Amino acid sequence: MSLNSFGHLFRVTTWGESHGPALGATVDGCPPGVALDEGMLQHWLDRRRPGQNRFTTQRQEPDAVEILSGMFEGRTTGTPIQLMIRNTDQRSKDYGDIAQAFRPGHADITYWQKYGIRDPRGGGRSSARETAARVAAGGVARAVLGVLAPEIRITGYMVQMGPHLIDRERFDWAEIEANPFWCPDARTAEDWATYLDEMRKSGNSVGAVVEVVAQGVPAGLGAPVYGKLDSDLAAAMMSINAVKGVEIGAGMAAAALTGVENADEITPGADGQPVYASNHAGGILGGISTGQDVVVRFAVKPTSSILTPRRTITRAGEETQIVTKGRHDPCVGIRAVPVGEAMMACVILDHLLLDRGQTGGVRGLIG
Amino acid sequence: MSLNSFGHLFRVTTWGESHGPALGATVDGCPPGVALDEGMLQHWLDRRRPGQNRFTTQRQEPDAVEILSGMFEGRTTGTPIQLMIRNTDQRSKDYGDIAQAFRPGHADITYWQKYGIRDPRGGGRSSARETAARVAAGGVARAVLGVLAPEIRITGYMVQMGPHLIDRERFDWAEIEANPFWCPDARTAEDWATYLDEMRKSGNSVGAVVEVVAQGVPAGLGAPVYGKLDSDLAAAMMSINAVKGVEIGAGMAAAALTGVENADEITPGADGQPVYASNHAGGILGGISTGQDVVVRFAVKPTSSILTPRRTITRAGEETQIVTKGRHDPCVGIRAVPVGEAMMACVILDHLLLDRGQTGGVRGLIG
Amino acid sequence: MSLNSFGHLFRVTTWGESHGPALGATVDGCPPGVALDEGMLQHWLDRRRPGQNRFTTQRQEPDAVEILSGMFEGRTTGTPIQLMIRNTDQRSKDYGDIAQAFRPGHADITYWQKYGIRDPRGGGRSSARETAARVAAGGVARAVLGVLAPEIRITGYMVQMGPHLIDRERFDWAEIEANPFWCPDARTAEDWATYLDEMRKSGNSVGAVVEVVAQGVPAGLGAPVYGKLDSDLAAAMMSINAVKGVEIGAGMAAAALTGVENADEITPGADGQPVYASNHAGGILGGISTGQDVVVRFAVKPTSSILTPRRTITRAGEETQIVTKGRHDPCVGIRAVPVGEAMMACVILDHLLLDRGQTGGVRGLIG
Amino acid sequence: MSLNSFGHLFRVTTWGESHGPALGATVDGCPPGVALDEGMLQHWLDRRRPGQNRFTTQRQEPDAVEILSGMFEGRTTGTPIQLMIRNTDQRSKDYGDIAQAFRPGHADITYWQKYGIRDPRGGGRSSARETAARVAAGGVARAVLGVLAPEIRITGYMVQMGPHLIDRERFDWAEIEANPFWCPDARTAEDWATYLDEMRKSGNSVGAVVEVVAQGVPAGLGAPVYGKLDSDLAAAMMSINAVKGVEIGAGMAAAALTGVENADEITPGADGQPVYASNHAGGILGGISTGQDVVVRFAVKPTSSILTPRRTITRAGEETQIVTKGRHDPCVGIRAVPVGEAMMACVILDHLLLDRGQTGGVRGLIG
Repeated sequence: MSLNSFGHLFRVTTWGESHGPALGATVDGCPPGVALDEGMLQHWLDRRRPGQNRFTTQRQEPDAVEILSGMFEGRTTGTPIQLMIRNTDQRSKDYGDIAQAFRPGHADITYWQKYGIRDPRGGGRSSARETAARVAAGGVARAVLGVLAPEIRITGYMVQMGPHLIDRERFDWAEIEANPFWCPDARTAEDWATYLDEMRKSGNSVGAVVEVVAQGVPAGLGAPVYGKLDSDLAAAMMSINAVKGVEIGAGMAAAALTGVENADEITPGADGQPVYASNHAGGILGGISTGQDVVVRFAVKPTSSILTPRRTITRAGEETQIVTKGRHDPCVGIRAVPVGEAMMACVILDHLLLDRGQTGGVRGLIG
Repeated sequence: MSLNSFGHLFRVTTWGESHGPALGATVDGCPPGVALDEGMLQHWLDRRRPGQNRFTTQRQEPDAVEILSGMFEGRTTGTPIQLMIRNTDQRSKDYGDIAQAFRPGHADITYWQKYGIRDPRGGGRSSARETAARVAAGGVARAVLGVLAPEIRITGYMVQMGPHLIDRERFDWAEIEANPFWCPDARTAEDWATYLDEMRKSGNSVGAVVEVVAQGVPAGLGAPVYGKLDSDLAAAMMSINAVKGVEIGAGMAAAALTGVENADEITPGADGQPVYASNHAGGILGGISTGQDVVVRFAVKPTSSILTPRRTITRAGEETQIVTKGRHDPCVGIRAVPVGEAMMACVILDHLLLDRGQTGGVRGLIG
Repeated sequence: MSLNSFGHLFRVTTWGESHGPALGATVDGCPPGVALDEGMLQHWLDRRRPGQNRFTTQRQEPDAVEILSGMFEGRTTGTPIQLMIRNTDQRSKDYGDIAQAFRPGHADITYWQKYGIRDPRGGGRSSARETAARVAAGGVARAVLGVLAPEIRITGYMVQMGPHLIDRERFDWAEIEANPFWCPDARTAEDWATYLDEMRKSGNSVGAVVEVVAQGVPAGLGAPVYGKLDSDLAAAMMSINAVKGVEIGAGMAAAALTGVENADEITPGADGQPVYASNHAGGILGGISTGQDVVVRFAVKPTSSILTPRRTITRAGEETQIVTKGRHDPCVGIRAVPVGEAMMACVILDHLLLDRGQTGGVRGLIG
Repeated sequence: MSLNSFGHLFRVTTWGESHGPALGATVDGCPPGVALDEGMLQHWLDRRRPGQNRFTTQRQEPDAVEILSGMFEGRTTGTPIQLMIRNTDQRSKDYGDIAQAFRPGHADITYWQKYGIRDPRGGGRSSARETAARVAAGGVARAVLGVLAPEIRITGYMVQMGPHLIDRERFDWAEIEANPFWCPDARTAEDWATYLDEMRKSGNSVGAVVEVVAQGVPAGLGAPVYGKLDSDLAAAMMSINAVKGVEIGAGMAAAALTGVENADEITPGADGQPVYASNHAGGILGGISTGQDVVVRFAVKPTSSILTPRRTITRAGEETQIVTKGRHDPCVGIRAVPVGEAMMACVILDHLLLDRGQTGGVRGLIG
């Protein structure tokens, strides 16, 4: 049991602090014989990298990943893959105040209460920087999925910034990579730009909702009752910094539906396989994939590192106010998109491997 | 790794099907020396038991729990506690159609696709009946918490039925046990009664939102980065049948907040310990408890077992319609309340034990 | 993490005390669709059952196993299988003295020191009776192996009783079931009978060495570096009551070999697959099976429950002497044979499932 | 579940190949606030380092460890500690033949059979070099034990080389560090030097038995029935390269003892606590520590990398002969001594933390 690990057979352990020497991920359980190189991982890391436009932190981190083990002549060997990213832009002087007082809404105080010691430089282990390791590990998962299940496509995007939602009528897959917000709705992306500029200038920050969809997932992944696909996805997404809610399919809105509405009616497809009239289930029934799109959403709270002063206490328990200078994301939800994709890739691969182990070759077909 | 287990040190494995000989829970990691008897567990089971009023399934199950191991002279011994509930009311003839076709929105189809075999009697392992085992295990957790941390109080209640929310202004703890809906708002409870009667009569069902609060939880429980308290709670709640969304504190609404609003400002209390001005965090920062109330909400979809015909396919892949006769809950959210409480109790105890193991005696205090 | 569980994908949790209401095993991860019934498990339990001849304890336990879950119409469903054995012959009055003082060489004292409470009736959880649950679980593993890998044959036997070893020149597989000692050497079996009668009459007990062989195991099972097949076998065998040593292949004697002697030379077989000139490796290299027989041996110490008085202390810390009346095995090694077989079956199946999950379909072949 | 990890709460995952860029260990579950630096770990690594005398491989590896995470201002923070050792002396040209054929008695063939790919440079992941990561992790465990249980002393030594055993009468703790064999018997150490020179000159290798003792371990560590202290030690030691047998206390010799002999009689000590007349149990009863010395022994087979030609097959399945040139240890048992110590340190610490979590504060005392 490691509390810094997730996954059953495809098991990822992340390590490292924001301003320590390095951070990374130990990836165990990767199948052998899969072509992999640092460039393939860098592709995904570059999507998460800060400082690419005015809407993310200006901290400049090349986030260059090194593969230290588990490879031979360009292929995975089935042994643990160690991924390391050196920290290079470590201006820890920016964080002076934070060492003495606790940012409201930040893990500063709970790490201190739990451990009696914490690395205050850039949030230490609680920094969003930890998610770079997840994205690198997700890159390994994507490479394996590319071999084992090339029909699976995983895509994340933002559907809400602050109070502003996208218009689902204007949803356009092609638009997602065309704006700095991974927004599938071009008009909303423009509104968000204006809104976020205001937020940033006023020394404030804002929350967001991210949606991640996995298309092409075969039916039968997931394992009742506590290794459910949705249960694992909920844990994976909730473990991302600043996430406060996770939804599958209809999500919280399912509460307002009737059974008649919520039933995704089934008709036989050309091959006798089920065709669903709707997808309130988000592609998961009883913890097991149905073959429909797997749809997960999560809410990211606004960052607590803001330029507006907030009341707090010091390590000595005295009253004070705090302002977080440093360089911070006005909307951390943006950079959470590639992280959500990475977690989805890891969870789907994990259950694909699990399913091979548990039911391999015995799976029933309808018809 | 067991996919029917949850918890790290306090580890619960549930087993059993709706209409098999019995179901239950294997509880491992229970500390020794705790007074426990079947009556203490029965107290919690009786709250979940169906057939107590017209708003839950009329299936009559005494749900009498037997403790088969792990006890000596009325105290736990530190060895596994086996909890067994015999199934007694097994009219499986009611389920004839379901064996041949799949209920839309139900796990019937995915179990079949995954395993090529399923127990169709009452939903088999996917039945809400499995949650009786969780409630029994939660009773063990409650007994241990009563010794180790008697200041912790765990309470669940419904805050939404269908589209109807409670009015938080009228929130009354005393009301929760006074109506059949665990509703903390008496006037809303009356509205729900009318609404649910209509639903039931029209052969329909409805969703709900349940909130569970743990008061008195000490600061410092939870373990970054993947053994976070909120990550474990999200997995635990999402693993309950029919749950489609989980929120901590402000939950999905956190997306619409600004950083200034979301920051739960801190002032020093009389003892130098932190006092929070608000609780958007739901008592958890960075995956670790703050000492505030831990607040979790989850959405329960409407049951898919309804009297209104729905289109579906048979095991042979042919088109058909299905109506679920049997005896079903028009709002499974009601009976999910004690289940949510049980999951909260197990997760909190688990992290209390973990924290003793990992940081015992070293924990820092503010001031 | 459960400390009463073993196995990765095929996961067994045993529970129960010698003189409580029942004991059993929760078996999770069993593949679906496998034919199974109580009779198949009873077959293996009957081999372990005491009271069948004068060389084992006269305690009469029918050890009738009930399958409480995980089955539908005679086949496994992929959900947890609960196996329960009711305790029926619970003359706990025989154990009066033991409740107050500690048997030297017995877990009485350590359970007390760890937990501050213990079930003294028949040794409670530390009783050899716990191994009945292992044998039942092993029966499930055998049923699955019969479908997935029918070429695998698992056989245990005793190779040493006290100082008396079998003569390997006289090894006869057919003899193993023909004497009360699972002894593959008929002449030695006769000597053991005489020796054990003496031991029993003198109120003493004696140790043994058990060997378990798995034939027909395919190459490639096991996972470096800590999920090695031999590492898992060592843990499994050492977890059996009274076991003090575990050997793979040449075992402790490997220390006295040179590299030239120890190298199991390889030549190509008819099909290009390796043929080994010897099997010092015990069928495992680098933690992975070679395709040769997997050979494990373990030493069972003499039972500490003897009629000869031994010096000890009471729970109050006072000097005393103890004699264990009750009904005890003069050589617990005999009944450990089916237990060792069961552990081997569980470990082999577990690694067969793991291997499907981790390398399924990619495995390389020589030639 | 990671198959390259061991430990429950103090969890170590090793990664890396002999001739890849680096190898190391991810250490999770280390308590916070413990003083630690690279020098403290280097101390233990230097003991394992090859090339220090003519009896170990002449490969020159500085084995310099870097701590990449989990530290702040010289103390552990409770977050994962990443330990990295760069590989520097990677003359992989030495290994040409091995890439095409399989060394008898080596994991070459099984890695190939399992994965269809392997890193042949220096044995890849199956190299004894992996144990450097264990020793580094063991250094962390020692640092923590130094704070939590400074009375615990862990010492390893060789008790047998080839057929030559030490004389227990001449056992001298001080001698262990005084000869290149960690031999507690000076006269035997001289004999071993002569013997090993002969072996080395004849292109042969030899096995050994290592004993590791933990003194000062409190009573009550270990957890029945499958998380037993001896079960975990057996797995830990058997997972070390080339180990073929593990013994606790009397070990395999326990089989030849009678119950009267094997009973470690107990008398009350000055403080009412138990005093044992002997230690056949090796400090463990029922899987739980007694407070006596914990004594483990393991047999290391002779290395399969020898200069004497052996018959084998090629990857193409053709007959050939193989001679391993490179630089190899004539007796790998020597360098296994610090490795065994490291595994003991990790297992003891793990159970110390587990015990705090599971029974903390409730533990019973005798008298």
